[in-house]
Amino acid sequence: MPDPAVVRRPVFRFSERGREAVEDAVAVEGVLEIRVGGSTLSVTLRTPGHDPELTLGFMAAEGVIHARHDVVGVAAGSAECADQPDTIEVTLAPTRVVDWTRLERRFAATAACGLCGRAHLESLRAGLEPLPAAPPLDARALAALPERLRAAQAAFAATGGLHAAAWCDAELEPQVLREDVGRHNAVDKVAGWLLGQGRYPVERGVLWVSGRAGAEIVLKAARARIPVLAAVGAPSSLAIELADAAAMTLIGFLREGRMNVYAGADRLR
Amino acid sequence: MPDPAVVRRPVFRFSERGREAVEDAVAVEGVLEIRVGGSTLSVTLRTPGHDPELTLGFMAAEGVIHARHDVVGVAAGSAECADQPDTIEVTLAPTRVVDWTRLERRFAATAACGLCGRAHLESLRAGLEPLPAAPPLDARALAALPERLRAAQAAFAATGGLHAAAWCDAELEPQVLREDVGRHNAVDKVAGWLLGQGRYPVERGVLWVSGRAGAEIVLKAARARIPVLAAVGAPSSLAIELADAAAMTLIGFLREGRMNVYAGADRLR
Repeated sequence: MPDPAVVRRPVFRFSERGREAVEDAVAVEGVLEIRVGGSTLSVTLRTPGHDPELTLGFMAAEGVIHARHDVVGVAAGSAECADQPDTIEVTLAPTRVVDWTRLERRFAATAACGLCGRAHLESLRAGLEPLPAAPPLDARALAALPERLRAAQAAFAATGGLHAAAWCDAELEPQVLREDVGRHNAVDKVAGWLLGQGRYPVERGVLWVSGRAGAEIVLKAARARIPVLAAVGAPSSLAIELADAAAMTLIGFLREGRMNVYAGADRLR
Repeated sequence: MPDPAVVRRPVFRFSERGREAVEDAVAVEGVLEIRVGGSTLSVTLRTPGHDPELTLGFMAAEGVIHARHDVVGVAAGSAECADQPDTIEVTLAPTRVVDWTRLERRFAATAACGLCGRAHLESLRAGLEPLPAAPPLDARALAALPERLRAAQAAFAATGGLHAAAWCDAELEPQVLREDVGRHNAVDKVAGWLLGQGRYPVERGVLWVSGRAGAEIVLKAARARIPVLAAVGAPSSLAIELADAAAMTLIGFLREGRMNVYAGADRLR
């Protein structure tokens, strides 16, 4: 079956050998409209595949839903046009009501991040509840994680154009890995998978991301109650501040058997 | 003078040598509130430095302003609190009025991108005006660009945590390079520099980005009327589609003396 995350495109390759016409595998990016009760909640760019997970993870990160029982149905297509794969229609449980005014305020921002609208750092920090203590993880086993996850990054291997995120349980066993052109989306897909399993918020394990750890990724991990965030790339200053505030373990530059621990080093041995 | 884009943080480094307490340089990420006429236009996460350029470039990408004369003043701090470096207050020319309703609709999206609110690809494509033809660029000279730009990426060199964007003129001379934890921001800072120089839209030259080329970067380049976009990383499928629609030259994987040309190869020789 062809991977919906990858297409082939004609390309001219310039190199020391001159110009060649070749084909290249390209990561797919497309528009997804998320609708709730017939109204548009969000229009986002994403890599097709696992759209329901992306939708649920995004809604959980935004605080629109909190657990699986908040959602009655997730269907591709809208009421007007069932044959529309780039629209997702979510039906909430009758007990859940969307506060559209709050969301509009929240989305009045450009960072695609869970920060939107909450302008002030102090209020951000105040919203973080400390994550639970956990038996220490073995640093050596954690250092081996990127190598183990590489095999699962099929679309990245083909295109070089996708971010990945994975959730590993407390024994460091990878349980889910998702890819997307948007790194927030990859994290949302993982969170949506947890939610679909009835395991959100999860209170355990490690969120691994293939790129950098910015503030918004820390916020999404904190919302999902994942106590350890491990990134292949660099963290930002705000990511470290927020990880400290959430008592989260924040690891950066997890690669080649090494890592830097920027917060919560007590969860490692 | 210390670089406002970089801070030092204590860190535990785990490696084959065991655990060491060291200091690490970290990219700064902080909140910036953009206000127009006393109202909040946007709250974004950015790396401090060149905030006025970021502001103007963002506003131009969003279509709120079109040229330098649309702006009367850009000041750090708000009317209530002048000593607030994380707020920028923009005063527009009396002839320019912000259409807040349109912007709210536009921001009802999660992609930090210039796509927001314009849900449909067709309308996106229809909004792109073909970029002007240009004398062909020398592929060999373009291949040498990353090496020449590397020296200017001071904060990236220190932290590994920043994206960069640069604009080079039609002779491939780099004129401006900006860094940010957000790659959209780096591009906005470059566009804001052009605007401040009275050169927006610019109709010439090359926009170079250190990372991947997603749809939103193509849209920002098209809005600034830059005919060539060259990325160190991979493009997405939608980026290629939109570049085709705008008659833009789209180059990916520009590194190690090679590149792939995904659209508009006629601008290269």
